[in-house]
Formats: sequence, structure tokens, C-alpha cells
Amino acid sequence: MLYIHVPEQGDHWQALLQAALPEMPVLAAPSEVDTDQVRFLATWRPPEGLFARFPRLEAVFALGAGVDRFLARPDLDPAVALIRLSDAGMARQMLEYVQFGLLRFQRRMDEYRALQTQGSWQVLAQRDASELRVSVLGLGAIGGQVALGLAAAGYRVSGWSRSAKALPGVRCLHGEAALDTLLGETDALVMILPNTPATRGLLDARRLQLLPSGAIVINAGRGEQLDLDALLAGLRSGALGGAQLDVFPEEPLPAEHPAWQTPRLHITPHVAAMTLPAPSALQVAANLRALLAGQRPQGLVDRARAY
Amino acid sequence: MLYIHVPEQGDHWQALLQAALPEMPVLAAPSEVDTDQVRFLATWRPPEGLFARFPRLEAVFALGAGVDRFLARPDLDPAVALIRLSDAGMARQMLEYVQFGLLRFQRRMDEYRALQTQGSWQVLAQRDASELRVSVLGLGAIGGQVALGLAAAGYRVSGWSRSAKALPGVRCLHGEAALDTLLGETDALVMILPNTPATRGLLDARRLQLLPSGAIVINAGRGEQLDLDALLAGLRSGALGGAQLDVFPEEPLPAEHPAWQTPRLHITPHVAAMTLPAPSALQVAANLRALLAGQRPQGLVDRARAY
Ligand SMILES: NC(=O)c1ccc[n+]([C@@H]2O[C@H](COP(=O)([O-])OP(=O)(O)OC[C@H]3O[C@@H](n4cnc5c(N)ncnc54)[C@H](OP(=O)(O)O)[C@@H]3O)[C@@H](O)[C@H]2O)c1
Ligand SMILES: NC(=O)c1ccc[n+]([C@@H]2O[C@H](COP(=O)([O-])OP(=O)(O)OC[C@H]3O[C@@H](n4cnc5c(N)ncnc54)[C@H](OP(=O)(O)O)[C@@H]3O)[C@@H](O)[C@H]2O)c1
Repeated sequence: MLYIHVPEQGDHWQALLQAALPEMPVLAAPSEVDTDQVRFLATWRPPEGLFARFPRLEAVFALGAGVDRFLARPDLDPAVALIRLSDAGMARQMLEYVQFGLLRFQRRMDEYRALQTQGSWQVLAQRDASELRVSVLGLGAIGGQVALGLAAAGYRVSGWSRSAKALPGVRCLHGEAALDTLLGETDALVMILPNTPATRGLLDARRLQLLPSGAIVINAGRGEQLDLDALLAGLRSGALGGAQLDVFPEEPLPAEHPAWQTPRLHITPHVAAMTLPAPSALQVAANLRALLAGQRPQGLVDRARAY
Repeated sequence: MLYIHVPEQGDHWQALLQAALPEMPVLAAPSEVDTDQVRFLATWRPPEGLFARFPRLEAVFALGAGVDRFLARPDLDPAVALIRLSDAGMARQMLEYVQFGLLRFQRRMDEYRALQTQGSWQVLAQRDASELRVSVLGLGAIGGQVALGLAAAGYRVSGWSRSAKALPGVRCLHGEAALDTLLGETDALVMILPNTPATRGLLDARRLQLLPSGAIVINAGRGEQLDLDALLAGLRSGALGGAQLDVFPEEPLPAEHPAWQTPRLHITPHVAAMTLPAPSALQVAANLRALLAGQRPQGLVDRARAY
């Protein structure tokens, strides 16, 4: 049996997954379930102790892309396969989020907004996309599509990953040694990395200072990767031109946090790319069938890498 | 001789055009010129009487896409060929402008901005691009690329033009009879039309009311095509969900105009797509050579159509 535990829309997920998997019983919380019968679990924001309830669990399907919160859970047996969503419609949303963030600064939309309140018609100089060096950190299921989309939109795109990659129209770099040099050549930094021991604190105060004056930062990976205090200081001093952040070390970002009122910082509440139930249910179904057939599912998490 | 008259950067245009046309003398205002020698004129915002100064004029190159101001000029002899820029890097900028305008509403960025000032972390529902019906009026050198770009970004795109068109992934309609029905099926209206007798006042109060409740309007063609008062009324009543306007019946928009302070209206000062000197100079040079070779230049204006 496949059991579903999600914060909301459980019925909707149940209907989608049952339709995609007619051969398997599918139940969703809060329905009562015989826990011995549950071999597969599909969940997001699982409550404490959820995993321990199912003694015969073979695989967990995370209904999102980032599995840092799953890997941190003591009740999830490392022998149980953990499978995450791979794109499933999130890459396109992420590209929208990043493009909006770039255009906001490139096309000086906030300044035009301020001029509007004064009734002032004033043309401001703007940079062409072809002049903007955009560096995408993380070239996975989402970041890779974002890098390709930005290159198609005319930006000068570099990408950075752990292992070597090749993407048409994107200058691909990899490994920690390449990062410092890349940051020095970056007008817009776009972070779409998983939260792992190797990425936590990656963009610390020292690395942020490597960015050229006036650079902008977009983080839609995880808040743990960026030193938020150092970013705020860079925005306040004018060293950084602006930032758009979707993720924070503590979420929700506390109401009294100074970030909310920092100039040229735009905050969104972890909405850059949301799970779309319809394509996600199809991907879970395909992955579950792959598991049953003894094949490797797409998005199988490697615990050693932590993503 | 090719003479250049532009409001600014005359030297830069002169250098670019002379480099692209080594076989022809190129001079730029305010340099003194033997007016009898001028066969070709490249200009934008030509001062009154400019055209009458050159008795041997064969062709005028408008250094922009819209030639309404040129066609209205009594000093421009209709026998002189008028050639406008065709894309020359403007289509990509226009796509940016339109995408920004769409995302602003679709991704609820203004509302997140307002929540930010209150220190409030709150997730808002959003529509997926695939659910948004975007109608692009004008499928020319610029509008055609915009329609294709929006389709590639995942929107449900219809396009509308005077003559029949076929663009992959875009539902193409044409002729005035098709417009009213199209407006009734439009969540986001994107206007990239030339200002001609046939398009002036096209989006009047009656047609604006055909749009479904909550529709948004982006006009980056010319202000004369849209009834600004009716649009403001639609925004104030809530019938329209928002608008982003780059062009106005009077430019600069007067400081006391109520548009500046209208809710959910974003105003930019005619900057959606700016002339890029480098690609534009190459296009003018290629067109001038075509003329000299007795061929039809790209962007030759048809006075009967007025574009
Ligand atoms: N804000 C939101 O709404 C939202 C939505 C979805 C996802 N996310 C975040 O985005 C992250 C990426 O998602 P995804 O599906 O693209 O993940 P993915 O397919 O696992 O890709 C991860 C990418 O990061 C690279 N990477 C990992 N560790 C690295 C390191 N130490 N140094 C350099 N590069 C490293 C990987 O390199 P290799 O290619 O060499 O493996 C890969 O390119 C998720 O983990 C999640 O945190 C946020
Ligand atoms: N805001 C800015 O910064 C900015 C920058 C550049 C341009 N513009 C404006 O954008 C306009 C379009 O530029 P472009 O280079 O794409 O022009 P274009 O190549 O001449 O294309 C004009 C398009 O409008 C269509 N059209 C013209 N009259 C029509 C009518 N009566 N009914 C239906 N469709 C009609 C044409 O139909 P057919 O295809 O059938 O001929 C064509 O598709 C320019 O004229 C200018 O006003 C604004």
C-alpha cells in the first residue's frame, strides 16, 4: 500500500496517485491505515515520528526537491529508499522567479516605481542582458534548466556544480576551487543548491566580498547556504546592488528580523517553485513502478552526498 | 552621403555607421554638412523642418520601430523611402518587459512586497503559466518574437494581427472581427501594435469591458491605441486586475495626471525596448546597400498601411 501524508490537499493527492497507480491501494491521512500494510509513503513536512509508524516501509517519496529535513530525521531508517521530486514542473517556476529577480534590477523597475509615486517621467540607463554575467550555483534538475533558460534569454551564463557538467551556451565550472574566481566575475549570483554539509555556509562573508561592487544575489536554494547577516551588511553598505531571497536560515523569517526592512532586499516566503500535484503524482507513480521492477528510480537520494 | 541626426550620442552613431559603410561618407549633426550631398538620413526624434533641408533625399532611416511621428510630418516627402528598424535587438527587450509585467501579477510580487513592509510571512496562491491565457496584439518583428517567447515560457498564447500568420505554439487570429471574441478569452492582454488610423482607439471602453474580470493589460505599443481613462476606471472599480503601461497618449505623461497614482498600475517612461546602436547600425548599413542595389530593404514602411 502507498500511504500519503501531506499538510493539505490529501484527498487531491489520493485521487491523483490512485488514478496513476490503479494496481496499488492508495490511502491518505487522516484515514485510518493498517500500518503493517504500508510499504510506500509519499509525504511533505512529515510530523515527528511518522516514519517509525510503518515497520515494513520500503521507500519514502518526498513531495518536494530538497530533502535536508528528511535526512535530518532520526525516525527515518537509512535502509529505506528516499526518492525526491526531480523538476516535475518546478524548474519552470524557478526560472520565472529568477528572471523576475534579474529584471527587477536590470530594468530598474523598483526605481521606476519610486519615480511613479512622485509623478516623475525619467528614463534611466539600463544594461542589456548580454552584458550581465549571471552565475548559477547548482546545475541539477532545477538549476540546470534555469541556467539553460537564462542563456536562451540572452544572459552571459556560468554554472557551477559538484561534478563536471556540459550545458549548451553555459560556461560550466565545478568544484570548490573554481568558486572564488567565479564569484569575482559575477554580476548576478543565483543560488539553487541543496542544503548539505558541503554547501552549508558556502556563501560566507569572505565569499560575498569577492562579488564585484553592485552585484545582486538571488537565493532560492536553502537559507543555510548564505550568511544572511553578511548579505544584509553588504546591502546596507552599498557593496551589493540588491537581493531577492526566498529561503532563510529560520522559516518563517521572524517578524522582528532586520531583513524585512533592509533596502534593496526583496523577500518571498519560500514560494519560488511549488510542488505541482498533477505532474508530481505521475513522477511518483513512475518511480514506484521502477522500484517494483528493480530499477533505479529518478531522484533517488544518495545519503553519502546528502542530496 | 549619409547624415545622422539623433538627440544624443551622435558621435557614437557616426563611428558605428562609418565602420559599417566604409564606402560612403557619414556625418552626424551638429557637424556642418553640404545639404545638397545628403542622399540618406538616419534619425530619431527629428526636429521640425529637418527633412526639408535636404533637396536630394532618397531615403530616411528611422532609428526606432514605430514611425507614426515620421508619417505625420508634412516636411517628409512621401516619395522618399522610409525605413524603420526591424527588431534589431528590441524584440528581446520587449519580451523581458512583457514577462516582467506578467510575472509581477501572476507571482503576486507586489503583494509580497506589501507583506514584507509588515514583516509578514504569508504564502499566497498563484496561477501556473499554463493556466494563463495571454493575447498578444501585433505579431510583427517585435510582437511575433514576444508571442513565441511567451509560448516557450509555458503560457497559453494567442496572437492577433492584420493579415493571417502562423507561429508554432501560438493560436493565431487576424482581422478586426476576431478581436472581440479573443478579448473575452484573455487573462492578460499584451499590446505591441503600431499607431495607425486603424489601431487608434482600438481598445476603447467597450472592448476593455469584454475582458474577463481580473484581467491584466500591458501596453508597450503606442498610447493612442488604448482609452487611458477607461483603463483607469477599470482598475479603480476592480474590473481589471492590474496594468503595466509604457506608452501614453501624451508623453511625458503630465505630472498631474491621475494615472500616476492609480492602484495596481505600473508606469514606465517609454523604455520597454530601446534602440541598440550596434545592431541597429548594422541593419541600417545592410538596408542602405539593398537600396543602392535596387533591392527591397527590410522594414520599408508602406504609407498606405501607415506602418
Ligand atoms: N525555494 C524553493 O521554492 C525551492 C523549490 C525547489 C527546490 N529548492 C531547492 O533547490 C535545490 C536544488 O534542487 P534540484 O532539484 O535542482 O536538486 P539536484 O537535482 O539534486 O541538483 C543539485 C545541484 O547542486 C549541485 N551541488 C550539490 N552539492 C554541491 C557542492 N558541494 N558543490 C557544488 N555543487 C553542488 C549538484 O552538483 P552535481 O550536478 O555535480 O550533482 C547539482 O548540480 C533543492 O535541494 C532545494 O533545496 C527550492
Ligand atoms: N515601447 C517601446 O519601447 C517600443 C519599442 C519598439 C516598438 N514599439 C511599438 O511597437 C510597434 C510594433 O513594432 P514592430 O517592429 O513589431 O512592428 P511591425 O513589424 O510593423 O508589426 C506590426 C504588427 O501589428 C499588426 N497590425 C498593424 N495594424 C493592425 C491592425 N489594424 N489590426 C491588427 N493588427 C495590426 C501587423 O499585422 P501584419 O503582421 O498583418 O502586418 C503586425 O503584426 C511599433 O510600431 C511601435 O509603436 C514600442
